[in-house]
Amino acid sequence: MSAEPSREQLDYSLGSREANEPSSPVARFGPDEPLHLDAGRDLSPFQIAYNTYGTLNADKSNAILVCHALTGDHYPASRSPVTGKPGWWSSIIGEGKPIDTSKYFVICSNVIGGCMGSTGPASIDPATGKPYGLGLPVITIRDMVRAQAMLVKRLGIDTLFAVIGGSMGGMQVLQWTVSYPERVFAALPIATGARHSSQNIAFHEVGRQAVMADPDWQGGRYFEFGKRPHKGLAVARMTAHVTYLSEMALQRKFGRNLQDRDQLGFGFDADFQIESYLRHQGMTFVDRFDANSYLYMTRAMDYFDIAGDYDGRLANAFRGSKTRFCMVSFSSDWLFPTEENRAVVHALNAAAASVSFVEIDTDRGHDAFLLDEPEFFAAIDGFVSSAATARGL
Amino acid sequence: MSAEPSREQLDYSLGSREANEPSSPVARFGPDEPLHLDAGRDLSPFQIAYNTYGTLNADKSNAILVCHALTGDHYPASRSPVTGKPGWWSSIIGEGKPIDTSKYFVICSNVIGGCMGSTGPASIDPATGKPYGLGLPVITIRDMVRAQAMLVKRLGIDTLFAVIGGSMGGMQVLQWTVSYPERVFAALPIATGARHSSQNIAFHEVGRQAVMADPDWQGGRYFEFGKRPHKGLAVARMTAHVTYLSEMALQRKFGRNLQDRDQLGFGFDADFQIESYLRHQGMTFVDRFDANSYLYMTRAMDYFDIAGDYDGRLANAFRGSKTRFCMVSFSSDWLFPTEENRAVVHALNAAAASVSFVEIDTDRGHDAFLLDEPEFFAAIDGFVSSAATARGL
Repeated sequence: MSAEPSREQLDYSLGSREANEPSSPVARFGPDEPLHLDAGRDLSPFQIAYNTYGTLNADKSNAILVCHALTGDHYPASRSPVTGKPGWWSSIIGEGKPIDTSKYFVICSNVIGGCMGSTGPASIDPATGKPYGLGLPVITIRDMVRAQAMLVKRLGIDTLFAVIGGSMGGMQVLQWTVSYPERVFAALPIATGARHSSQNIAFHEVGRQAVMADPDWQGGRYFEFGKRPHKGLAVARMTAHVTYLSEMALQRKFGRNLQDRDQLGFGFDADFQIESYLRHQGMTFVDRFDANSYLYMTRAMDYFDIAGDYDGRLANAFRGSKTRFCMVSFSSDWLFPTEENRAVVHALNAAAASVSFVEIDTDRGHDAFLLDEPEFFAAIDGFVSSAATARGL
Repeated sequence: MSAEPSREQLDYSLGSREANEPSSPVARFGPDEPLHLDAGRDLSPFQIAYNTYGTLNADKSNAILVCHALTGDHYPASRSPVTGKPGWWSSIIGEGKPIDTSKYFVICSNVIGGCMGSTGPASIDPATGKPYGLGLPVITIRDMVRAQAMLVKRLGIDTLFAVIGGSMGGMQVLQWTVSYPERVFAALPIATGARHSSQNIAFHEVGRQAVMADPDWQGGRYFEFGKRPHKGLAVARMTAHVTYLSEMALQRKFGRNLQDRDQLGFGFDADFQIESYLRHQGMTFVDRFDANSYLYMTRAMDYFDIAGDYDGRLANAFRGSKTRFCMVSFSSDWLFPTEENRAVVHALNAAAASVSFVEIDTDRGHDAFLLDEPEFFAAIDGFVSSAATARGL
């Protein structure tokens, strides 16, 4: 059912450093199981890297799928072999935590188009023997979810007890409830929306242009030339990172504080702490993320528009849904403002779906969904527990 | 008193296209009149390109100085020889307009550090015979204002009837009232603040990194190599441009509208209108603006912090001021939100200065100060008229 990724695959997708690290299970899908893409083409063969936590119960009713965000990975509750850091949701997932791994079987997979072991632009195109680069069809959120559904089926699970994720992960949650409503008992879309706004597309486009402006990008074929568009990707990450934080949080954390000096340097080195911080974010990001995957992930988010698939009527996407929803937004999130989240809630109400909605009061912006927010944890805990009771878990 | 800029100067600062265009008056300051810079060095010789509109009256009491923004120029009320477009404030400045050129003598100069004829990083460093590049000391808003004060004096004017400007221009207005309070009768700082916020520094730093990541930037010496960092500068401009607009305006103007197609292209060309718009903004900007000047202008704004010069007490900067202030903010401006403007108003109140404050209700974001906003025009008209009466004009 699963196998180790090949050394070659890892070398291409993560750099040689990865080759010495522990790797995750990988589900491989051969020519008989192609992934039908929204672009109108099939992806085959393809593979999905994933991790699981906890134990699947006898009737396979306790599975929770965790969907990661743009630059996330399938290590939400275990140390990332790439960064060496604890799982990005280890405060939420684990024994005795809101998503209790002594009770639930938690699955998290790297999205299709990603760069952490699932098939993406850095994977070898069997037709050429070289990395896909831009030869990989554009991937949509629906494609990611379609692949996850194949993985879940492969794991022998018919119905997921819950699907949860924030930001791009939240988009996947919503898509799950639309594509496979009968296979999702409870859904927790967090800090997300039913579409990507014009401003969000704008910031993504800036990031893509930064990557593609880097001559080392080489039209997406940088691996073949032994290059990496690190500078462009760092700029893209810096831009995006500003949108993940709130103006308030930046002012509180950094303000106009100077870096390593008592006074202004009258030059173009990092004078302010916020500058050093951003440069650091950019520099460390390029070590762990593939530039082409960044293009594909941002494109998938930009293309996301559930209402667009339903003649502009979002509520129609959810008609007849029996899924229980818990939507969570963060008050200072300006990437996916509460109004965008609330628009989904209104559509769910209009579709007579079961939905609860929580806005967490915080000044930490979009990133709050990854941070220590006790109210947020309590909301997840409460909703998951009550859904478990309803499910007889 | 003034002279045409040399062909060489223009060739360096604007590209050869400019050599055939009409040019503005230029005030030259020789070795006997150096510009003392905050960086602790003198700039000498230096020159200021400027334009005037209307006629200076006999007692020289009707002069209004207009200060331009980051990427502005000294053609607020006449066609730009570079872009061929009407002046950027031609809706405000002219006969019968809020700043009536049949009544007032309007001066606008290109800031020091700029690229439209005043001494900047593209100018020739007399010590090397080559363009300054990063050899030019970092310029501050106070340096810009110091140079303007020298120009105003050169024009024989002791006291300005008014100083007006938006964004970086508004910073200059505030600095004028602090550096030369007795020389400003009325001040109109628009869509600005007394300091650059952490978030604003962050976006500027992203832009600078985009420029400096472009290999054609050549450490700032691109002119010597016959290159221009167009790609990096375009990305910088795109990033900044998003911050000039509001989320609402973007959604209203562009939403998720597609460009030249009925459906998504499943590629990385511009699918959405917002993408084409931003790419166009980036591409046209590099034709008219020098990359190093962009670094210097953004740095000047980042360094701006009036309270910082007064032990953190903004009100102390304005103590004893006799200047009449009219501060204007725009409700959807998130680069200089109303709160930042209001902080200046509170400080002026605390200093017992004369101040009126208007927040214009608009969804057009920061850019509103350059757009057709009748309420804004009426506010300027009303304040300028009443100040003129008080001044006996």
